[in-house]
Amino acid sequence: MARVLNRQTPQYLGKDVSVAGWVNSRRDHGKIVFLDLRDRSGILQVVCNSSVAKDIKEEYVLRVEGIVQERPKAMVNPELETGKIELKAKTVEVLAKASQLPFDLKNLKLSLPKILDWRPLTLRNPKIRAIFKIQEQLLDSFRNTIKGLGFTEFQAPLIVPSNAEGGAQVFHIDYYNYDAYLAQSPQLYKQIMLAGFERVFTVTHVFRAEPSVTTRHLAEYISLDAEMSFIDSWQDLMDVCEKIVKDMFSALPKKCAKELKILKAKMPEMGENIPRLKMREAQQIIFERTKRDNRKEQDLAPEDEKEICNFAREKYGSDLVFITHYPTKKRPFYTQPDPKTPDYTLSFDLLCRGLEITTGGQRINEYDKLVRNIKKWGNKPKDFSFYLQNFKYGMPPEGGFAFGLERVTKQILELENVREASLFARDMERADQRLATLQPKAKKKGR
Amino acid sequence: MARVLNRQTPQYLGKDVSVAGWVNSRRDHGKIVFLDLRDRSGILQVVCNSSVAKDIKEEYVLRVEGIVQERPKAMVNPELETGKIELKAKTVEVLAKASQLPFDLKNLKLSLPKILDWRPLTLRNPKIRAIFKIQEQLLDSFRNTIKGLGFTEFQAPLIVPSNAEGGAQVFHIDYYNYDAYLAQSPQLYKQIMLAGFERVFTVTHVFRAEPSVTTRHLAEYISLDAEMSFIDSWQDLMDVCEKIVKDMFSALPKKCAKELKILKAKMPEMGENIPRLKMREAQQIIFERTKRDNRKEQDLAPEDEKEICNFAREKYGSDLVFITHYPTKKRPFYTQPDPKTPDYTLSFDLLCRGLEITTGGQRINEYDKLVRNIKKWGNKPKDFSFYLQNFKYGMPPEGGFAFGLERVTKQILELENVREASLFARDMERADQRLATLQPKAKKKGR
Repeated sequence: MARVLNRQTPQYLGKDVSVAGWVNSRRDHGKIVFLDLRDRSGILQVVCNSSVAKDIKEEYVLRVEGIVQERPKAMVNPELETGKIELKAKTVEVLAKASQLPFDLKNLKLSLPKILDWRPLTLRNPKIRAIFKIQEQLLDSFRNTIKGLGFTEFQAPLIVPSNAEGGAQVFHIDYYNYDAYLAQSPQLYKQIMLAGFERVFTVTHVFRAEPSVTTRHLAEYISLDAEMSFIDSWQDLMDVCEKIVKDMFSALPKKCAKELKILKAKMPEMGENIPRLKMREAQQIIFERTKRDNRKEQDLAPEDEKEICNFAREKYGSDLVFITHYPTKKRPFYTQPDPKTPDYTLSFDLLCRGLEITTGGQRINEYDKLVRNIKKWGNKPKDFSFYLQNFKYGMPPEGGFAFGLERVTKQILELENVREASLFARDMERADQRLATLQPKAKKKGR
Repeated sequence: MARVLNRQTPQYLGKDVSVAGWVNSRRDHGKIVFLDLRDRSGILQVVCNSSVAKDIKEEYVLRVEGIVQERPKAMVNPELETGKIELKAKTVEVLAKASQLPFDLKNLKLSLPKILDWRPLTLRNPKIRAIFKIQEQLLDSFRNTIKGLGFTEFQAPLIVPSNAEGGAQVFHIDYYNYDAYLAQSPQLYKQIMLAGFERVFTVTHVFRAEPSVTTRHLAEYISLDAEMSFIDSWQDLMDVCEKIVKDMFSALPKKCAKELKILKAKMPEMGENIPRLKMREAQQIIFERTKRDNRKEQDLAPEDEKEICNFAREKYGSDLVFITHYPTKKRPFYTQPDPKTPDYTLSFDLLCRGLEITTGGQRINEYDKLVRNIKKWGNKPKDFSFYLQNFKYGMPPEGGFAFGLERVTKQILELENVREASLFARDMERADQRLATLQPKAKKKGR
């Protein structure tokens, strides 16, 4: 008999079905045993004779054939999609046995490091599973919106021949007999793609050798990157970001209602438009609200990002705010300065609930200006000759942006640590498990 | 005036429009100049006065406003979507200038290494662009099919803590003060995901330190990876592969008719079902056809793969064939042996036009057997403790497969070299450009 999913069983009332899944829990009542069977669609109550269920324990994998019947009224569970029915087992086949669980998987009380150490097992918990179903939907939503706007999907290479963009936080690879690096972003490749395709996007891994452990940073994360040419103004870029976020926020409650409920998540508020403030304006507002004077700083500190989000929430009813015009010196060489105030760039960050989730801006598309800037930033144009082909042979005004997928997930779900939103978190101490436990004699190479 | 794409202009006959793009070619006829303007949607003929067009050269980027008019009958071009009309320019704005081109971009006569050296520029050629539009569509089609079958998308990590799967062809990373490696496949992570999600897929980069340069191998490529549990038989896996390929082959001519025409591509033939042959049967057939006796070899050589495809084509009218039952010794430790013939595995390759495009099989899901095999293959179960959690606590029968995206593209389009289907090919000599030219003093570390 073909398997049906647990969620489908109520449609088969009075009929025989075959289901399969993991034993979520076992309750013995004399000669009767109740097994909660868990599959990807939900939980189903299975009723067996104790002789049939004899050795079955939690996390055993079963195939059960039986008849779908109504539960006695007193046993109806309105919390469950299958709460009005149960499966009276006729045959129970053990597909796989399980060892005694090391902790209660249904009511996880583990610290985050333990959850990550036990990721393969903890993925079976519905709350943890819900985080990644939501993440999948956010990615889907991004792709739908951006494809609808005529962007072409491509794959950027992750092995790059030089540490071209600058920045020390790069991982070195032994590449045959050469040096190579893990991509810190798909930036240069996004721009290269424009001449053929005009509008491109990629869902890609990026790598940052973050030198400390914070709740906001990962050594490997997923970036939703887009780049578009023939822009009339850099504001076009923020308009596209805004549409992406709006679509995400409207699709998620429809597509993942169950998961949002499991996680007791409250979607961020968003007005008609996301407010747009210059960094210097934001610093002035923060100063006036807190008397904390960071007005000469070249960036917003984490506490500033939180405070300006508080402000946007109070003044505009928005959990999101764009901060624009970051200082030219603090942005990469390819960032377009504002012609009106060349010390500040046509760049932006999008903050959500106190944390940056997106960064973007207009790029320099003029060949001579780009070459000048490469030198000014201390690099050699020769190292960028591949990239520069693009600009030497005609590139229209363009710009782009990148969303950090784990951060978007974290901020929507109000998770405490970005690692909760990373399936297999990598940081300076961890790759699957704690590196110190895997490689007790760390090679102190001191590159 | 808002920009319209070239392809849309025929809808605006007699009306003013604004278009933008690159100058594909320039033809001077006395006081009149014809510019072919290229954008992502196609080519549009623009008619200007020579005074307006004065310094404009190939690959200049223009915004042109003008009126859409019918072409004189003698000038109608049936090859072009916009071939019945032209744009009479009123204003021409130069958005970016271009240097003199180093070669004829419209009629590329470059060798493959030169095409790759000049990738940013050669991406502007319609034939090359078409390859990657087709590649995007193949990816889309894979995702549509597999999502329709209830698979959840996830991202596998690419930094892995140990060279766990075996094989010397792995890239080493300096990971903080530890050793780490670039993922050779998402295999272990796909399997880890099963307990929560049952059916998963990922579109991922995989890395192989291929020790030679062939027309079939890349050091970094895109893998379309899927894994499913609760299979009734390993044949289920081939059924899913078959559906993916069928959907790809039926969608592509609909979605990319223009691109297939530009490339003069002929889709592979496929009957009702893809024939399935055991490796030993295939070797016998090859022997009978060619008298080449490879019947004791442990794998099919490239010439054997071509020959068995010739056979499938002649006998079944199919450009595709599954080869099954590869020897247990030659497959990774997690491959399920056939209970009937334990020296051979429940594994398969899918060949298309003489080349493997997919590999897959059933995995060992029994904890004890898996631990035994890890030891038998010369590894330590301790190094797999993360992965083994999955099997220790109950895993149903499962298996999966992976398509190589560049190879699928290559075989459909009958390209000579897989590098033609890789946007930014990486091999032992190349990362963007030839490494020897970028890093003249190669560090001979001899790892």
